[in-house]
This record gives sequence, structure tokens and C-alpha cells, in this order.
Amino acid sequence: MASSKNEKGKKVIIVGGGLVGALNACFLAKRGFQVEVYERRPDIRTQEVVKGRSINLALSCRGREALRAVGLEEKITGEGIPMFARMIHNLDGSKKSIPYGKRDQSIMSVDRRHLNELLLSAAEKYDNVTLHFNHKITRCDFEKPQATFLREDEGTTVEVPGDLIMGCDGAYSSVRQQLMKTTRFDFSQEYIPHGYLELSIPANKQNEYAMELNYLHIWPRNTFMMIALPNPDKTFVGTLFMPFKIFDSIKTNDDLMKFFKDKFPDSIPLMGEEALKESYFRVKALPLVSIKCSPYHVSDKAVLMGDAAHAMVPFYGQGMNCGFEDCLVFDGIMTKYKNDFSKVLPEYTDTRNIDAKAMCDLAMYNYIEMRESVNSKMFLLRKHVDNMLNWLMPNTWVPLYTTVSFTRIRYHQCISNRQWQDKVLKNTLWGSVYAAIIGGAFALRRTGVTMETIADVGKDLINNIFLKA
Amino acid sequence: MASSKNEKGKKVIIVGGGLVGALNACFLAKRGFQVEVYERRPDIRTQEVVKGRSINLALSCRGREALRAVGLEEKITGEGIPMFARMIHNLDGSKKSIPYGKRDQSIMSVDRRHLNELLLSAAEKYDNVTLHFNHKITRCDFEKPQATFLREDEGTTVEVPGDLIMGCDGAYSSVRQQLMKTTRFDFSQEYIPHGYLELSIPANKQNEYAMELNYLHIWPRNTFMMIALPNPDKTFVGTLFMPFKIFDSIKTNDDLMKFFKDKFPDSIPLMGEEALKESYFRVKALPLVSIKCSPYHVSDKAVLMGDAAHAMVPFYGQGMNCGFEDCLVFDGIMTKYKNDFSKVLPEYTDTRNIDAKAMCDLAMYNYIEMRESVNSKMFLLRKHVDNMLNWLMPNTWVPLYTTVSFTRIRYHQCISNRQWQDKVLKNTLWGSVYAAIIGGAFALRRTGVTMETIADVGKDLINNIFLKA
Repeated sequence: MASSKNEKGKKVIIVGGGLVGALNACFLAKRGFQVEVYERRPDIRTQEVVKGRSINLALSCRGREALRAVGLEEKITGEGIPMFARMIHNLDGSKKSIPYGKRDQSIMSVDRRHLNELLLSAAEKYDNVTLHFNHKITRCDFEKPQATFLREDEGTTVEVPGDLIMGCDGAYSSVRQQLMKTTRFDFSQEYIPHGYLELSIPANKQNEYAMELNYLHIWPRNTFMMIALPNPDKTFVGTLFMPFKIFDSIKTNDDLMKFFKDKFPDSIPLMGEEALKESYFRVKALPLVSIKCSPYHVSDKAVLMGDAAHAMVPFYGQGMNCGFEDCLVFDGIMTKYKNDFSKVLPEYTDTRNIDAKAMCDLAMYNYIEMRESVNSKMFLLRKHVDNMLNWLMPNTWVPLYTTVSFTRIRYHQCISNRQWQDKVLKNTLWGSVYAAIIGGAFALRRTGVTMETIADVGKDLINNIFLKA
Repeated sequence: MASSKNEKGKKVIIVGGGLVGALNACFLAKRGFQVEVYERRPDIRTQEVVKGRSINLALSCRGREALRAVGLEEKITGEGIPMFARMIHNLDGSKKSIPYGKRDQSIMSVDRRHLNELLLSAAEKYDNVTLHFNHKITRCDFEKPQATFLREDEGTTVEVPGDLIMGCDGAYSSVRQQLMKTTRFDFSQEYIPHGYLELSIPANKQNEYAMELNYLHIWPRNTFMMIALPNPDKTFVGTLFMPFKIFDSIKTNDDLMKFFKDKFPDSIPLMGEEALKESYFRVKALPLVSIKCSPYHVSDKAVLMGDAAHAMVPFYGQGMNCGFEDCLVFDGIMTKYKNDFSKVLPEYTDTRNIDAKAMCDLAMYNYIEMRESVNSKMFLLRKHVDNMLNWLMPNTWVPLYTTVSFTRIRYHQCISNRQWQDKVLKNTLWGSVYAAIIGGAFALRRTGVTMETIADVGKDLINNIFLKA
């Protein structure tokens, strides 16, 4: 039973030594649990090249608060690069910046691998944490609970009994697959038509950053886009997000150069033609998936966290932040119920599921906003209106991006907050539009423009600035 | 290549010998393919008792047309029992009937097992069909394609190469699980809080049907319900649909009898107290799942059909009908592209996916309608309005239930058709409500009823009769 052992005798098996797994190890170690982390890959701290996932991430409020709780915030932000605004690259080479929030609010570009290494080393500093690499999970017995691992380097099998299995093994989680075999597990995975491919922008000839430093650079092109985040080594990591159809249609160096000259002309000198060709054709574009599931737990024996529970498309920069906040929310519930898993796990599902699902939806919404809406005058108008109302009513009118990235307001409340704002604005604006229609109808009567046309145009314009998610 | 062999030399491996698998065998045999059906269970025609799935099904237009195409309609409808209306059992013992459509329109109660047996025997009559029982699929190689089966009776493994793998292996499809490992496969499974449990209503003492014969009997109780369908042997099969919470709260015979006396008093003498107790506690309530996925195919090598592609909750009685219509739609595309799988399979996904998903949504909508709305006066009002408008404009105004159950209008068009009707009615009714408000406002001014209250009441009433799906 939950209360029959003290925490020192209790063992948590964390499956996955990525960002969320390593951070969870710190949280649980602080609570006195015996923590064993099992990671499928070799120790990235000993590797030259690490495959897979995007190299740069944007750390914001939720992630920072979770790091702060285990004493790691300063160390990690000290090595990141703040980004105070988006820098929009237009097709004609002109640029404009759109701030993320107020003057002092920024999101932080951090290197995924370096962050993961820091977290693993931080976890390892606790006496009660052990890290096991090259361990691939093959089976979970949720009754005992017990996890079985294949040591891929030795070909041997290890059975690990414990008190809690924590699945932090990412979007393609094996723990979740085992959980799907239990009864009445809701699950969805949805791929978007876009894939992503990473490109590098090196330092310029003066060995300086080739673009303005403290920005998240965006080349929005409606149906696709490119972004770039700064690294401490004076390079930028660029990511191209496009429908696979477009990726597939670019087959030769000539196709590629024609495409970039048409769509991202200002980026070619920054990347260098040869480097662009080399990196574009070196790897295949990778898919992007949105995953939701429920419940996150099995009785008092197992729980899913991070991408294993809620993979999202990367367009809000909240994947890692949401995963880190998972650890913090879980930790809060652990305090509330004095580490009693039988109470903690159900409440974790109850409170966190609605928020993680909301964030998956918001990320999907921003998938359109980033490549499309940032190009639109109505989007900018809405930003201005939001900023003005926020200035007038700082505690009442907080823009969506701000609530998501710079507060810990629950994700589902960020959405309902925005929906309330939309409603207020819609009612106000529709009133004005109708007044304009009635006022203007007489003037336009002879031009052949019907009142329906005017109403439709008004509707289109206005719909453009409300949440479609 | 698709054109290098004629159909006589081509082999289709059908995984699953249930309703859809057996019907597909007939369709493909007619086209000249060599058809091999592999079923996990033993041959139900040789079994005494068959486990699992609900015993009675409601066959309607789509299923009948598919059966007609392989010459089986008359044989099967000849053994079914037509149901022309719902028979609503109120708590006070009173009953009322609500027709499904026009006087001559009925859905047909058929026995699942008997239907499956007929279809298997019909398939076996073709020289080019072989049936293999006790074969559990363990692996699909979609490249070749090739399917691997475990002969559960002998413990041996069989590798079966072919030209097409057809996954007709039900809601928990193994073929679909293999397909999920391919890239960018969208999938969702959603369990509802309700489970189901079957109960029997025997013939009465005069050896006659204990209730009115040609009806689908419904005991709607808002948060749960019971239904009953007639069998040829003078019994009815009852099915109780309730939240698992209620099932779990009934632990003893006394709990059960108290619950039935409270909620379904008129059914107790029909079932018999002892038989009710015996059958209620003999088995556990089973879960109900809604499954959607996309695409249905892998290149020109494999395709999913029936519940494997789109399991739905049973509340519209379309699970089997939709599965049978799958076969018919597929057959039509086979004709169009002269059996060229490389063209047939992508078009099958493109056309069928939108319809099957729409039907899953409609089934979920009827989950509320059946247990709740049929109790409501507004629901009946809407039925009357629909029937009247249908009588006035028989080709323009066709009620939703009619389009789904008595036509082959594509499912997604049934929904858009209904949405159009809702819009027309809403606009008309809102006009009237507002007229009434304005007219009545003066009269009510002194009663303390505000105009907002009236508008809210009007809104609630009207929302009750529009599609919520």
C-alpha cells in the first residue's frame, strides 16, 4: 500500500532520459524517491552526433518555473539567447518586427542537446538517481508494476520492479502503447500535411551573427514557412516547414535554387548556396504529429508525461514548456496528497488532461497563424487592439500569446479567456460594421455593391482576427 | 504490376471472416479473384456458443443494396423481422410509437450469427474462395504483400503471399495495428462512458412474442436506456446501455431488482425476475468505442474495411450497414478502374473516408438522441415538422433518419443536408420567436420575466431540435 513504505524505500522507474524524463528525475529525487532512469539511446553526453529532433527550442515562462523549482533556471537561461520579437522577412527583402509581449518579455532560444545534457548531469548529482542508457523498454506489467528492458548493447533482458512507472518516452512512447492495451484508453494521432527540415545559417565573414540576434526570424509564405533561432556559437538554426508535396517536388539542385530564389531570396546569401544544397538533400523532411490521449495513468502504478502524453505540432513553442510544466503540476499534486500515488495519479489526469489537450489545439491554431496570419493587416490590427486594451486593463485583458508564453494561467483558461475577448470584440465590431453598412448603404446603392456583399466582406475581415482553434 | 496478371491469377487475402470479410469474399469472387479468407476464431457454423458481439442487428437500405449486388438480399430479408417504428416505453408503463419513415419504410432485425453463417456459406459456394479458420494474423508485410498467420489449433505458422491484403478484422483490427507502423497514419479511438449488456425477453406463456412484434422497443431514461429487437424464435434481445458507473454500482440481486423496479418496471414481468438476475450477473458490461483512421490503404497492397476502418457506437444501427456499403462502394470503384488496385485503393480512401467519419459522428449524435431527445416534446415537434415538409417537398426535404437509413445518399451529405434544414428552420423560427418576444414583451413587463429570459428559453427550446453532432 501507498503508506506502508516511506519514500526512501520507494522506487520510480522513469522510462526515457530526454528533457522531461531527466527533469522528473530531479523532482522525484528531491522528494526522496529512489529514481531509476532508463533511456533507449546511448548517453548523449558521450556522443559526437545525436540524431533526430529539432536542435533549438524556445523556453518560456512555464518551462522556466519548472526549472526554477529544481534550482536550474539560472544555469540554463544563462546559456540561452532571449528573443523579444518575431522578425518577419517579407518576400521583397524588407523586414518588420512584432514583439512577443511587453518590452521586457522574451522567450529564450536554447539548445536541445545541451539542455538535455545539463538535466541528465543535474539528475545524476542526486545520490538516489541512477541513469541507465541503451535500455529499450519491451514490456510493462502495470499490475506489479514492473518494466522489462532489452539492453541493446549486450542483448540481455532486465526486469525492473518498482512502485511507479513514469512514461516520459516521447511522441512514439512504448509505455503508451502498452497502456493502449488496457481497457477504455482514448487516443488520437493526427499528422499534418507539413514536414520539417533543418538548415543552418553560419556566422558571417566578420564572424558575427548573420541576422539580428534577439529575434525569432520568420519567413511566412502562407502555405509554408521558414523560421530561424539563434545559437550561442553565432549561427542560426533554420527550419523549413512545408507540405510534403512541396518537399517531394524539389528533386534537384536546380529545383532547390529556383524555389529558394522565388520564396526565400534573402536567405540564400545567409546560408550559402553550396551549404544549402548540401544540407537540404542530406536528410529527409520529418513528419509532424499531434497526439492526445486519456487517461494519463493506470491505477496507482503508471503515468505518462511530456510528449508521451501530448505530442503537439511545434508552432507555439510549447512542447517542452508544457512537458516541463507537467513535472511542476505533478509535483504540486504530490505535495497536496503527500506522495500518495493512488490519489495523485487520478488527479493528475483530471487536471492536466484538459490543459494539455487545449495546448495541442492552440499549437494547431498557431500552425496557421505563423505561416499565414502574421502576413495579414487584420492580424496586426488585432495585436494593436490587444496591446491597447492590455495597457488600459492590464489584469483583465491579457492577449492569448502572453497568457500562453508569459504566465502559468492554465492552458484551457487561456483559450476561454481568448474566446471571451473575441466575443467582446465581435459584438463591438459587428455593431460598428452594421452602423457603417446602414450609413454607407445609401451612398453605395448605385454602384451595384449589395448590402450582402458588404456584410460578407466585413465578416471575412473580422473572422480573420478571431481564434479559429 | 497490376496489369501483368489477369484477375484469375490474382489473390486477395481477406483477414477476418466476420460479416464484412465474408461479404467481400463474395464480391471479389464474382470478379474472378482467387480469394482466401483467414479468420481467427473457429468456424461459427460448427460452434454451439459464440462469444462477443451483440446478437441482433438492424439491416437497412445500404446493407440491403450490398447484399442485393451479390444476390443475397431476399434470402436474408426473408428471415428477418421488419421494424416500422420505435416503441417508446415510458416509466409509467405507457407506450407510444414513433415511425422510422413512411408507412412502408422499415429496418430489419437480423440475427448476427445466422447472417454471418449465411454469408460464409455463400462465399464458400464460389470455387475461387477458400475459408481458413483458427488463423490468427501475426504480421503483415505490405511491400510484398504477405500476411503471416498463427494456426492456433496446431501452433504452426503460415506465410501467405498475395496481391492484396484486405483487413476486415473488426474494431480491434490487427491489420490496422500493422498499418499504424507505416508513416503518417491518422488514428483515433474514443470510448464513451457507457457500456452494454444483453438480456433476453422470452416468449410469453402462450408461446407468443411478449411485446408488439414489428418495433424496435426503447426505454429511454435520459442518462441511460434499454432497447429490444425481435428474433424469429419469438424472443426479444434486450440491450442495456448505461454508464459503467451505474453498472458497477449494481452489486447484488437486491440492487438489481431495486434498479429495474425504479427504471424499467414494465420489463421485469417480461424477462422474469430470476432470468434477469441470472443474465445480468453472468457477464460483464462491454465497452463501446468509436474509431476513425486515415488513409484506409497502403499503396496498391492493402486496404481496411468495416469496423477495422471505422468502428462506431451502435446508436444509429449503421455499423453493419456502413460496412456492407464499404464493399459496394469498393466494388463500384473496382469497376470504374477495371480492378487496378493502384487506382482503386487511393480513390477508395478519398471517397469513403469522409463518409465513414461522418457516420461515426452521426452515431455519436444519436447516442444522445435515443436516450434523451426521444423523450422530448421538441424532438417530436421536429419529427412532425420534418414529416410535413417532406410531404410538401418529397425530393427536397428528406429527414436525417430517412437519408441515413432509407437512401444511399452519402453519409457526409446526409449531415450537410440536415445542417441546411436546421439553418432554414432556425432562421424561420428565430424570426417567429423574436416576433413573439416583441409582441409579448409589453404583456409580460409587470411579471418580472425579462426579455432576456424569454430569449434564453426560446433558444434552449430551439437548440433542442437541431443537430448537435
